[in-house]
Amino acid sequence: MSVEYQDIIYSVEDPVAVITMNRPEALNAFTTRMLAEIRHATAAAEQDERVVGIILTGAGRGFCPGMDMNALDSLSTGSGAAEDLSSLKAEPGDDSLGDNFTVAYTYLQSLRKPFIAAVNGACAGLGMAIALLADLRIVERQAKFSTAFSQRGLIAEHSISWTLPRLVGSGNALDLLWSARKFDGEEAHRLGLAERLVETGESLQAATEYIQQLAATCSPTSLRVMKAQVHRHMNMQLGESLIESNDWMAASLKRDDFREGVRSFIEKRPPEFKRVTG
Amino acid sequence: MSVEYQDIIYSVEDPVAVITMNRPEALNAFTTRMLAEIRHATAAAEQDERVVGIILTGAGRGFCPGMDMNALDSLSTGSGAAEDLSSLKAEPGDDSLGDNFTVAYTYLQSLRKPFIAAVNGACAGLGMAIALLADLRIVERQAKFSTAFSQRGLIAEHSISWTLPRLVGSGNALDLLWSARKFDGEEAHRLGLAERLVETGESLQAATEYIQQLAATCSPTSLRVMKAQVHRHMNMQLGESLIESNDWMAASLKRDDFREGVRSFIEKRPPEFKRVTG
Amino acid sequence: MSVEYQDIIYSVEDPVAVITMNRPEALNAFTTRMLAEIRHATAAAEQDERVVGIILTGAGRGFCPGMDMNALDSLSTGSGAAEDLSSLKAEPGDDSLGDNFTVAYTYLQSLRKPFIAAVNGACAGLGMAIALLADLRIVERQAKFSTAFSQRGLIAEHSISWTLPRLVGSGNALDLLWSARKFDGEEAHRLGLAERLVETGESLQAATEYIQQLAATCSPTSLRVMKAQVHRHMNMQLGESLIESNDWMAASLKRDDFREGVRSFIEKRPPEFKRVTG
Repeated sequence: MSVEYQDIIYSVEDPVAVITMNRPEALNAFTTRMLAEIRHATAAAEQDERVVGIILTGAGRGFCPGMDMNALDSLSTGSGAAEDLSSLKAEPGDDSLGDNFTVAYTYLQSLRKPFIAAVNGACAGLGMAIALLADLRIVERQAKFSTAFSQRGLIAEHSISWTLPRLVGSGNALDLLWSARKFDGEEAHRLGLAERLVETGESLQAATEYIQQLAATCSPTSLRVMKAQVHRHMNMQLGESLIESNDWMAASLKRDDFREGVRSFIEKRPPEFKRVTG
Repeated sequence: MSVEYQDIIYSVEDPVAVITMNRPEALNAFTTRMLAEIRHATAAAEQDERVVGIILTGAGRGFCPGMDMNALDSLSTGSGAAEDLSSLKAEPGDDSLGDNFTVAYTYLQSLRKPFIAAVNGACAGLGMAIALLADLRIVERQAKFSTAFSQRGLIAEHSISWTLPRLVGSGNALDLLWSARKFDGEEAHRLGLAERLVETGESLQAATEYIQQLAATCSPTSLRVMKAQVHRHMNMQLGESLIESNDWMAASLKRDDFREGVRSFIEKRPPEFKRVTG
Repeated sequence: MSVEYQDIIYSVEDPVAVITMNRPEALNAFTTRMLAEIRHATAAAEQDERVVGIILTGAGRGFCPGMDMNALDSLSTGSGAAEDLSSLKAEPGDDSLGDNFTVAYTYLQSLRKPFIAAVNGACAGLGMAIALLADLRIVERQAKFSTAFSQRGLIAEHSISWTLPRLVGSGNALDLLWSARKFDGEEAHRLGLAERLVETGESLQAATEYIQQLAATCSPTSLRVMKAQVHRHMNMQLGESLIESNDWMAASLKRDDFREGVRSFIEKRPPEFKRVTG
């Protein structure tokens, strides 16, 4: 899986993998290559036993303002040639989780490990759509958000019409989509689309510490199953979700992690849980 | 489509249509005629190229306290005769959006244009149910809300049992439905059922400026498609919503509005987008 | 239905039934017996004409920290014998509400009467899962919550993976499930999983007064139907929910409670509504 990345930096320091979008001169606007590299890196992180959680962040002062305007301009005029990205082919995520997680960037919700967006700056368009597919958003106070699409004559692209209303309500979602107005991290937090609000420059550190804390106290298998439950059960009725939860609970009661979880609690010592690989 | 309205005032000033419920002596309580006139006027607003967004508000100090008590009393005793409203027959909304938007007042969610409730005062019963079917609620601080039904021996009528829990959570929805307690605009905003909070007398102006701003900067076709996406995708699983979004994205990339959106951005000038008619 | 309860106290004072989990030496941790006794008592409360609403609370300083650790330890090591609980067999709830309310503790959402959790202290694991199945949560400021599962190697058990994201959003739900961090009543209220925040020692009184107020002003049949609507319609599309609401509205218009609701309003006197039995 060793690949030379061009548009991201990928680094692992147990228990954290960091994917840094790295086109700071363009505030890390997406290229087709960058999107393929992110997908490839998440597959590497899934396979890596050292990794308990994955962070997506941006180099410099931006997170990601969406597709690169040059790419978009080529698209609107029909010019531009396709790049060969076959060396970056990868299928991250658990394909047993079903059809809801097979189209485009929804694979992020089927990853076997927590995937956290550390939003350090401008986050717009497709950048925002992808941040909303992350499991959690740790957001800096001054970060600027915008859905952007309506001012370009575009629509609510790539799942944001599904994720955003479920985080902020249909009315706030329509406001943000229609107006494409800019709003900062503080409002993002108040509206419900940022789960953590931190000060300027602190999002990567906060996300790192969060994953370190998870690794020190929680079963990685529990994290994996809980992620699958929450994302799958957003698409299910109560009854059918409960049947699945009961099956998965029965399986959990037979795992070593359960015995270790109870014994370490009774013995008042840190637990030693099994790590997850892809 | 020219009709003499009795219980509403309908006015258009590019880019805004305003429907004013106009029975101020009864705080604008609904009559069957008023409901038919609102429906008729929304159809007119959809057809009118000048109209980018539609506002519903009330004359005087009320928004709408629900069905007129006299009408309700007739209903509870079985008296009263039906009025001929055939001249008001109209089918607003996009009937390609599916079965979720064909029963009763859900047509409001299938309208091809933003539909904003400017809640200037008492908003209860069916008045509240209809405000919750609006895309956005701009609410004055002193406006008084109540679900009202439980104290009349009635149930959660006309879609409020579906819309309210999705805006405020099932627990708050049950509290508001059960207790029928009065709450003001400030609490409505805090709970999540009012997206904008303004001072007394300012809701119509705020809604007007909001639509003017949309008209100046955003593609009306984008507004239309985004509205359809959000309301439809509240009723869909993630995967199927994304397939629809991808289809609609492909269509948007071929439209003049996309080219204009990109060019006007690059050229740093206001965009000129195509208006929508029904 | 007269049964000697061991692990709960059941008391009725018109219009309120109180189920008090009563193992204060263990902060009211669940035993299998306690869970069966709660189910039995809710059936009794449903049948009792005096009861308009049901409260679940804890004796002493805890609400319920989940399954008893001794029971859990037996489970993880495979030891322990089953107790005979056949005298507690009961089927509370309205079985016409469908499959979503037949598995495990979801019967609480099909009860014919409001079921309110008065969270007076520690609320964790299965205790929290059951509090989230209650219709409303009235929570004391100092009450401590934790999902607990991940630190024991377990998963999101018993419907909490469905209920929690719908109250606090998928991101906050994952944070609370993954980290199993402790949070207090104030944060529970801010996140949206507690509908009412009260001071230490006040939750039972607040819940009692809430039900007294409902009994004095609202139709118990309306409360019953509204509860069924909200919980059922969380699992439905808008269109189908509205067809059901319209049917139930038509039924409500024929009931004595509707006539009484209108007459008492016009005559400016307290209403006298019919009580509900199972």
